[in-house]
Amino acid sequence: MLTRIAVAPSGFKESLSARAAAEAIAAGVRRVVPHAEVDLIPLVDGGEGTAAALASATGGRLVALPATGPVGEPVGTHFALLDEDTAVVEMAAVAGLSLVPRTLRDPGATTTHGVGELIRAALDTGVRRILVGCGDSGTSDGGAGALQALGARLLTERGYELPRGGRELTRLDRIDPSGLDPRLKDVELLVACNPFNVLCGERGVARVFGPQKGATPEQVEQLSAGLDRWAYVLERDLGCGDLREGPGTGASGGLGAGLAALGARLLPRFDVLLDHLDLDARLARADLVLTAEGALDHQTPRGKVPAEVARRAKRFGRPVLALAGTIGEGAHDVRAVGVDAYSSILPAPVSLPEALGRGGEFLTDATERALRMILLGTRLAEPGRTAPLAA
Amino acid sequence: MLTRIAVAPSGFKESLSARAAAEAIAAGVRRVVPHAEVDLIPLVDGGEGTAAALASATGGRLVALPATGPVGEPVGTHFALLDEDTAVVEMAAVAGLSLVPRTLRDPGATTTHGVGELIRAALDTGVRRILVGCGDSGTSDGGAGALQALGARLLTERGYELPRGGRELTRLDRIDPSGLDPRLKDVELLVACNPFNVLCGERGVARVFGPQKGATPEQVEQLSAGLDRWAYVLERDLGCGDLREGPGTGASGGLGAGLAALGARLLPRFDVLLDHLDLDARLARADLVLTAEGALDHQTPRGKVPAEVARRAKRFGRPVLALAGTIGEGAHDVRAVGVDAYSSILPAPVSLPEALGRGGEFLTDATERALRMILLGTRLAEPGRTAPLAA
Repeated sequence: MLTRIAVAPSGFKESLSARAAAEAIAAGVRRVVPHAEVDLIPLVDGGEGTAAALASATGGRLVALPATGPVGEPVGTHFALLDEDTAVVEMAAVAGLSLVPRTLRDPGATTTHGVGELIRAALDTGVRRILVGCGDSGTSDGGAGALQALGARLLTERGYELPRGGRELTRLDRIDPSGLDPRLKDVELLVACNPFNVLCGERGVARVFGPQKGATPEQVEQLSAGLDRWAYVLERDLGCGDLREGPGTGASGGLGAGLAALGARLLPRFDVLLDHLDLDARLARADLVLTAEGALDHQTPRGKVPAEVARRAKRFGRPVLALAGTIGEGAHDVRAVGVDAYSSILPAPVSLPEALGRGGEFLTDATERALRMILLGTRLAEPGRTAPLAA
Repeated sequence: MLTRIAVAPSGFKESLSARAAAEAIAAGVRRVVPHAEVDLIPLVDGGEGTAAALASATGGRLVALPATGPVGEPVGTHFALLDEDTAVVEMAAVAGLSLVPRTLRDPGATTTHGVGELIRAALDTGVRRILVGCGDSGTSDGGAGALQALGARLLTERGYELPRGGRELTRLDRIDPSGLDPRLKDVELLVACNPFNVLCGERGVARVFGPQKGATPEQVEQLSAGLDRWAYVLERDLGCGDLREGPGTGASGGLGAGLAALGARLLPRFDVLLDHLDLDARLARADLVLTAEGALDHQTPRGKVPAEVARRAKRFGRPVLALAGTIGEGAHDVRAVGVDAYSSILPAPVSLPEALGRGGEFLTDATERALRMILLGTRLAEPGRTAPLAA
């Protein structure tokens, strides 16, 4: 009954790529059911590794280039060409949190300028469609830097160009869009984002994600005020409508809103990304689906990989087990979206750095332990035992 | 198929008593299979809580009294009277590690003097049998203090009484047994101990447990040398035979050896203790057996509670799941003694103090997660799925 197992994890932030996570899980599976067919489906969510994974899955290629990183220094980065028509720009590859040195983790100062540079480079190749992947960002500038890189002028009251960083947005007086790259009009700009992320309000991106990016409570309020101002000026000067609480406008520190103001369509990330991986058919073929993510908590049902995998697996009636480094507050809610059981991967009291450093080993061992519990269950159900208990 | 669940855990050292652990597990069970019959069998291993648990299980009572604690200060302690004939002296209740303040954790200095005082107090009640429970000790004096309390004189070369503490044993010149309590001859003295614990040699108690009790590598060597000397003088002056590597001689920092020198019988602890709890019959009635201990590692098969529970459950073909705070090196070996599956209870990277402080909550949540994995397995085995995979 365990002949085909689908292994469809996310990456574990700052510990394992999605591919490494899938391989670690598969190693644990093989210890218990060595003859099972294991289908590795490392999942991308728009964040780190998305461009490379989609290039690999589609037979496309990566184009390497330098661009401005999140703290203003040049970084080596890349975008993907899936075919002649389609490019993938991964924001994390040029403005991701992992590119921000720990000592400089101030989301008021970081910029998406490099994202605009990558979009320009993609336009240079003549593609007709640019897919921008959001996630794992280290920025909170609403995409202001990206718009500047694409030719918009963001001006203070005295007519100076606005310096980089989300903390400056409260000083934004007006936007002059006349210098915007004219090729933007002829390209389809799609943004793969978590639709639960919104720009402003109580669940706005600065309040929900600012602290993770290193913002103090005061900085969170400053960033929120800046993004309020950003939404107001974008609507007034670019005529893009109200972006304050639209689905995905808060993606990657508000990059979603900035690109939407240029006419981009904000799309639920999994709808855009996972069709490239043939996910549904592969889940349908499995007896058991294993998924995983760094943390399982109240955010998981709000558009994270394990919830998406479980939702899709349930269409085919497939049982789903989720593994996580941290079982956080609200993890219980994942059962409502189709995760039948879940487990932490930690074997003992360990520090976060040790957990991150030993993620692969822990994930393999925890997979083995989980599968042995499942096998114990299959034996309980063997004929000759008493009738199943309704529960 | 999950109508009767036996919950037979050990305590979690410095976190949960066996009863608290059993109740925490039962709470997790009820979240998943609320109508299952849960049989709570908190297990004792001779250490902390043994006297109280046996008094409770047999309808006996506890006798409270003051005695000398492990660092020489008086402590409030107790022994149990199970009936007119039988007393239980729990060494941990008067010389346990938890009675040693963290700042004074020097196993070279602590004493079992209070154990001898409790044995004397038990003799005063006129019982014919005294069962001494070993485990969770904070001492490494070979039972020297207990012998002194019972009237033996331990003398230095110059004829002074040996000061308390295992570190002094290298200075022991001779033992004068003439003052030993004469009632010891007329009582049956039984010691419930882990037979894997031996006094001397490479697997001697100082080397295996000294570091846990706070000994530095130098202190471990000093304690080992002291216990070697202790075994030599005991054999020479009391005519008790070679106690160096006999089963259980190392129990509770060598207390086993000291009492054996007085004629006590060292017995495998579970054989002595668990019959009071009717354990075998209760395991035989269960569909599933849950056991637990603070750590699951290479020591587990060497006489720890989960191994004993698994060994007995296997006689009746019962599946066994073990939960632990720490999955340590060598945990894999527990499968060979009958543990079918095991899991850590930790939900996230946490420090040891936090893990100890939140043990009950973690254990309940982990039990729920484990049972959901088992239930997932029972569904995999439902009719209509493909044939079981041999694994």
